[in-house]
Amino acid sequence: MDKHMKMNGLVKSYDTNRARMLISCPDGPGIVSTVSRFLFEHGANIVQSDQYTIDPEGGMFFMRIEFDLAQLEERIDGLKQDFAKIAGRFQMEWNIFQLSHKKKLAIFVSKEDHCLVELLWQWQAGDLDAEISMVVSNHPDMKEYVESFGIPYYHIPVTPETKREAEQKQLEVVNGKVDLIVLARYMQILSPALIQPYRNRIINIHHSFLPAFVGGKPYAQAYDRGVKIIGATAHYVTEELDGGPIIEQDVQRVSHRDDVAELKRIGRTIERVVLARAVKWHIEDRILVHQNKTVVFN
Amino acid sequence: MDKHMKMNGLVKSYDTNRARMLISCPDGPGIVSTVSRFLFEHGANIVQSDQYTIDPEGGMFFMRIEFDLAQLEERIDGLKQDFAKIAGRFQMEWNIFQLSHKKKLAIFVSKEDHCLVELLWQWQAGDLDAEISMVVSNHPDMKEYVESFGIPYYHIPVTPETKREAEQKQLEVVNGKVDLIVLARYMQILSPALIQPYRNRIINIHHSFLPAFVGGKPYAQAYDRGVKIIGATAHYVTEELDGGPIIEQDVQRVSHRDDVAELKRIGRTIERVVLARAVKWHIEDRILVHQNKTVVFN
Amino acid sequence: MDKHMKMNGLVKSYDTNRARMLISCPDGPGIVSTVSRFLFEHGANIVQSDQYTIDPEGGMFFMRIEFDLAQLEERIDGLKQDFAKIAGRFQMEWNIFQLSHKKKLAIFVSKEDHCLVELLWQWQAGDLDAEISMVVSNHPDMKEYVESFGIPYYHIPVTPETKREAEQKQLEVVNGKVDLIVLARYMQILSPALIQPYRNRIINIHHSFLPAFVGGKPYAQAYDRGVKIIGATAHYVTEELDGGPIIEQDVQRVSHRDDVAELKRIGRTIERVVLARAVKWHIEDRILVHQNKTVVFN
Amino acid sequence: MDKHMKMNGLVKSYDTNRARMLISCPDGPGIVSTVSRFLFEHGANIVQSDQYTIDPEGGMFFMRIEFDLAQLEERIDGLKQDFAKIAGRFQMEWNIFQLSHKKKLAIFVSKEDHCLVELLWQWQAGDLDAEISMVVSNHPDMKEYVESFGIPYYHIPVTPETKREAEQKQLEVVNGKVDLIVLARYMQILSPALIQPYRNRIINIHHSFLPAFVGGKPYAQAYDRGVKIIGATAHYVTEELDGGPIIEQDVQRVSHRDDVAELKRIGRTIERVVLARAVKWHIEDRILVHQNKTVVFN
Repeated sequence: MDKHMKMNGLVKSYDTNRARMLISCPDGPGIVSTVSRFLFEHGANIVQSDQYTIDPEGGMFFMRIEFDLAQLEERIDGLKQDFAKIAGRFQMEWNIFQLSHKKKLAIFVSKEDHCLVELLWQWQAGDLDAEISMVVSNHPDMKEYVESFGIPYYHIPVTPETKREAEQKQLEVVNGKVDLIVLARYMQILSPALIQPYRNRIINIHHSFLPAFVGGKPYAQAYDRGVKIIGATAHYVTEELDGGPIIEQDVQRVSHRDDVAELKRIGRTIERVVLARAVKWHIEDRILVHQNKTVVFN
Repeated sequence: MDKHMKMNGLVKSYDTNRARMLISCPDGPGIVSTVSRFLFEHGANIVQSDQYTIDPEGGMFFMRIEFDLAQLEERIDGLKQDFAKIAGRFQMEWNIFQLSHKKKLAIFVSKEDHCLVELLWQWQAGDLDAEISMVVSNHPDMKEYVESFGIPYYHIPVTPETKREAEQKQLEVVNGKVDLIVLARYMQILSPALIQPYRNRIINIHHSFLPAFVGGKPYAQAYDRGVKIIGATAHYVTEELDGGPIIEQDVQRVSHRDDVAELKRIGRTIERVVLARAVKWHIEDRILVHQNKTVVFN
Repeated sequence: MDKHMKMNGLVKSYDTNRARMLISCPDGPGIVSTVSRFLFEHGANIVQSDQYTIDPEGGMFFMRIEFDLAQLEERIDGLKQDFAKIAGRFQMEWNIFQLSHKKKLAIFVSKEDHCLVELLWQWQAGDLDAEISMVVSNHPDMKEYVESFGIPYYHIPVTPETKREAEQKQLEVVNGKVDLIVLARYMQILSPALIQPYRNRIINIHHSFLPAFVGGKPYAQAYDRGVKIIGATAHYVTEELDGGPIIEQDVQRVSHRDDVAELKRIGRTIERVVLARAVKWHIEDRILVHQNKTVVFN
Repeated sequence: MDKHMKMNGLVKSYDTNRARMLISCPDGPGIVSTVSRFLFEHGANIVQSDQYTIDPEGGMFFMRIEFDLAQLEERIDGLKQDFAKIAGRFQMEWNIFQLSHKKKLAIFVSKEDHCLVELLWQWQAGDLDAEISMVVSNHPDMKEYVESFGIPYYHIPVTPETKREAEQKQLEVVNGKVDLIVLARYMQILSPALIQPYRNRIINIHHSFLPAFVGGKPYAQAYDRGVKIIGATAHYVTEELDGGPIIEQDVQRVSHRDDVAELKRIGRTIERVVLARAVKWHIEDRILVHQNKTVVFN
C-alpha cells in the first residue's frame, strides 16, 4: 500500500490511502460534528484537522482535514457521492484530493531565472510533491536547462502584435493538462481568458511587499522611498494587477548602503523562498480563498 | 449573557458561555468524531478547534476546542461528568476551562523590573485576560510600584541561611490562591516543593536562546562566544535548571559593536516580548505539554 | 572628568570630553584626510567614525565621527571656529554635539499610551540618554501618570474651531525649549508653522509598513488587504502626510486568524520598539537626512 | 580603465583602480588621521571607510578602507612599501587587496548538494565576485554537475584507513592555488595540516544556531529539545570542532508540527543563505578576526 520515494537521502512514504478534504461554508452548528462523524462512519481516520471561523455568528467556516481510508482509490467516488448530500445541506464548497494524484504544474518564466531554478531544485530535492509538466516562456533562453530535467519547454514569444495569438497558444498548451500555473517572474500580464479557468490556481511572485510598490520596477520604487525593509509577495492572480489574494510574504532588512542592484540581489533570495513556500502550500492543499483573502493552514 | 470590559479604548466582550477543552491521549480512530459529536449532542457550538498528532500510528493525539454552550455556568458540571466516560475510554488527560473564570497569577521578581513592568502594562491594556493576584519578591524595591496597581506585594527575603524558611513562606502565599506562577527575571532557584504542585504551571524567562548559554550570565557568555544573534526563551520550570519544556523563543540580530551592556539592553526587549507571549498563551489554554516538549496551538 | 550614572544596575560613564560631529557635503578627494588631520592636530582622539558616499563620482558624502578632546567644554567654541574654514572649503553642512549636553525632548501624545509608556520606561531604565522636558497632549488623560515622573504635562485641546490657536500654543510651549519633538501616536496633523522650525527634528510613528497604508486606520486597511506581515514606520515629519524620510521600520508575521483588534495588539509592540529605536538613534546623532531619505550609522 | 561584466541582466563595472585595505592594531591616537593622510598624499580617493574600536583606552582598533588610485596595478607595490613604515609604527596587521585580483575558491562538499548548488547559482548570477577554482569531494556524485560549469572536480575518497593520505592529497590540490576553502556541508573533519596554512580562510556552515547543538545530527538534537527556532552558523574553522570565530548566523521559526525531516528541509534554506552571505563578505574583505571573534563591516 505504500509507495516509497528516495530523494536526496530522505525517504518519504506516501500512503496511497491518504486524502485531504477542503471545506468552505457559512458557519452554523454541527458542521465539525457532522463531517467527522461522516468520516468515522466511512472508516476513515483523521490524521490532521484544521478549522477556522470568521466571526462565529453569521460568519464563514473553513476546514482542512487530512485522513486515511483503506482502499481509497476504489472507494473515493462513493465517498464523494455520499458527502455531496452533507455538502448540499451546509452549502459547502468542497473538494477531496488524493495524495497519490500529484498536482501537475506549469511554470511560466521570462528572463530572470532565480525562481525557476529554486523550484526545480526543491522539486529535485523531493520538497515539492508535484509533477512539473512544462515550462512556458516568452524567451528561448532556458530551453536547454529545463529540458535537461526532462521537462518540456514551450517557447511562446509575446509581442504587442502577437499577444492575442500567444495567449491562445498558452491556453492550448496548459488546458486540461495542468492543475496549477506558477508565474516565476513571468513579466507579461496574463489574459483574462487564461485567468478565468484557473481562478485561484495561478500563483504569481511580486517583487515587493504588497500593497506597497504595485506594478513595475518595485525595487527602484523602494530605493526612491528609502524603505528600511524590502519584501516579496506570492498571490493568486486576478484581473486586478498585483491585487489578488495574498498567500505569503517575507521581508529582509536593508540599509542606505544598498543601491537598486543590491536590493534586487537581496530580493532575489526573498522571492525564491516566498514563491516556493506558496507553491508548496498550494500543492499540499493548505490554502482556502474567501473573497480577496486566503486562509492558510500551515 | 455578555460581559463587557473597556480598557484602553478597546471593548472586549466575553460570552460567559464560552469554554476551552484541552485533550491529550494515545492516538486512535474516532477521537475527533466522538468528541465533536459529544459537544454537538450537548448543544455546544465549536468556535475553533486545533488538533495535532505525533506519528499517526501508535502516536499521541492533542486537541484544543473552543466552544459556546448556553447556560454554561449551570451545565458545566454535568458536561464534565458526561465527558469523563468518553475520556476514560480513550485514556485522555483533559480539562475544560471557562473563559469567565479568569486564571490567577503570581509574578515572582527580583531586582530587574522590565518583565514585571511589561506584564503589568499588557494586563492594564487588556491584553492579558487574567487576574494578577500577587507579586512575590526577594527584594522590597518594587513594593510601592506594584501596590499602586492595587496588587498585594509579598517581600520574602532569601538568604542561604533562610532559604528553606523562605520557600515555605512562598508556598504558603501562593498555595491554592494562584493558577500560574510567572518568574519575571526571578533570580533564585525554586525549591522542588514549589515546583511539584505547580508542574507545567510555572513559566520562567531565560535570557538566552536555549539550549545555548544555560545558567548564569548568558549575555556575557554570548558576548564571549561572539554570536551574531541573541535570544530569550520562555519555558516551564522543572527540576533541571533551564531544562524544562520550551514554550516560546525569539531573537534579535547583534553585531561586534554591541558590548555586554548593549546585549543586555537589546535582550530586555526580547525577554519582555517572549515572556508576555508565553503567559498569554498559557492563559488562553493554548499549550499542551508532552514529555519535555510543548504543543502550542496559536 | 567623568560623570557616572547608575540606573537599573548598569553603570554608564560619560566622559564630558566626548563629542560627535556630523557632516554632509558633495563628495570629493581629501575629505576624510582633511577632517581626521584637523582633529588629530587639535589633540582629539577619534573613537568611532562612519562614512558613506552615494555614487563616488559627483555624489554626496556623509560622515559621523565620535571623538574625545581634553577640556572640550572650554575648547569647543574655538574648535568650531577653526572647523568652519574647512567646512566652507568643502561646502559642508555640519554640526558638533557634546555628549554632556543632553538633548531635550517634547513627547506629543493623544489617547493611546503605549508609545509614551515605552519611552518613559526606556528613559527611566537609562536607555534614552536625553531629557524629557515635557509631554504635550490634546487630552488630559495621562496628566497624573506623566507628572508622577516629575515631567510637566501641557494639555492643549484641539478642535476644528480652536486648531489654529492650539497650534500657536504648542509652538509657544516647545519653542526654544526642546531639540526634538516625538509624536508618540499623536493623532493630529501638525501645522506647517511647527514643522518648519523643527525640520528633521520631529519623529512620528506611523502604524503601518510605509508606503503601504498611508493615512488613517492602517490596521483595518491591512486586514482588508489580507497581508501576512504587518509593520510600523518611524519617520521625520514633513508637510506631506506620512511621506517624510523613513528612519526605521520593523514587522511581524500575522495570519488569517488575527482580526483587526489582534493586529492592533501585535502592532502596539512593533510601534513601541520602532519608535524607541528611532528616538535613540536621533539622540545619539546617528541620522543624516539627504533629500527624502536617511543615512543611519548604527 | 573599466571592465564591464554582464550577467543575468545586471551590468557591473569594476574599476581596476579600486582596492581595499584591512587593518588591525592596538588602539592609539592618530591612526585614522595618519592612514587617511597617507592615502590622500598618494593620490588615493577614499570611497568607503569603516572603523571600530574595542574599548577606547588600551583596546584594539579595526579598519576597512575602500579606495581608488589611478594606475593602481603599477603603483600597488610602491604603495605597500611606503605603507609598511606606517604599519610598523602602529604595530599593524594589514593587507591591501585589489578588486581586479579575484579570490580563488575551493568548495568542499560531501553528499548534500544544496549549499554547493546555491554557491554555484549565486556565482553564475554574478553575486559572488570570485573564481571557483575547484570542487573537492569525498564522493563522486556531483562530478558531472560541477564539470558542466567548467569547474574541475577532485574526487578524493576518505576512509578511516586512507584519511591521512586523503588529507595529503587535499593539501596538494589546494596548496598555493586557492585563497579560500568553503566547506559546503563537507562532513569530514579537516586535518590540522590543512587548517593551519588556511587559518581564517576556511569557512564552514554548521547546521545549528551555535553554540547550541555542536557536533553531529543537530536537527535531531533540536527536535529532541523542542526548540521553537532553528538556525545555521557560518564560521572560520579552527582545531576546535564547531568552535571557530562566528561570521554569520540566521534563524527561522519552527513549531511542534515540524518533525526532523521538516527541520532539515527548512534548515537547508537557512544554511544556503548563511553560507553564501559569509562567503560574499569574505570575498569582499569585510571580515577581520580578533581572538575568537569576527568584526564584520557590512
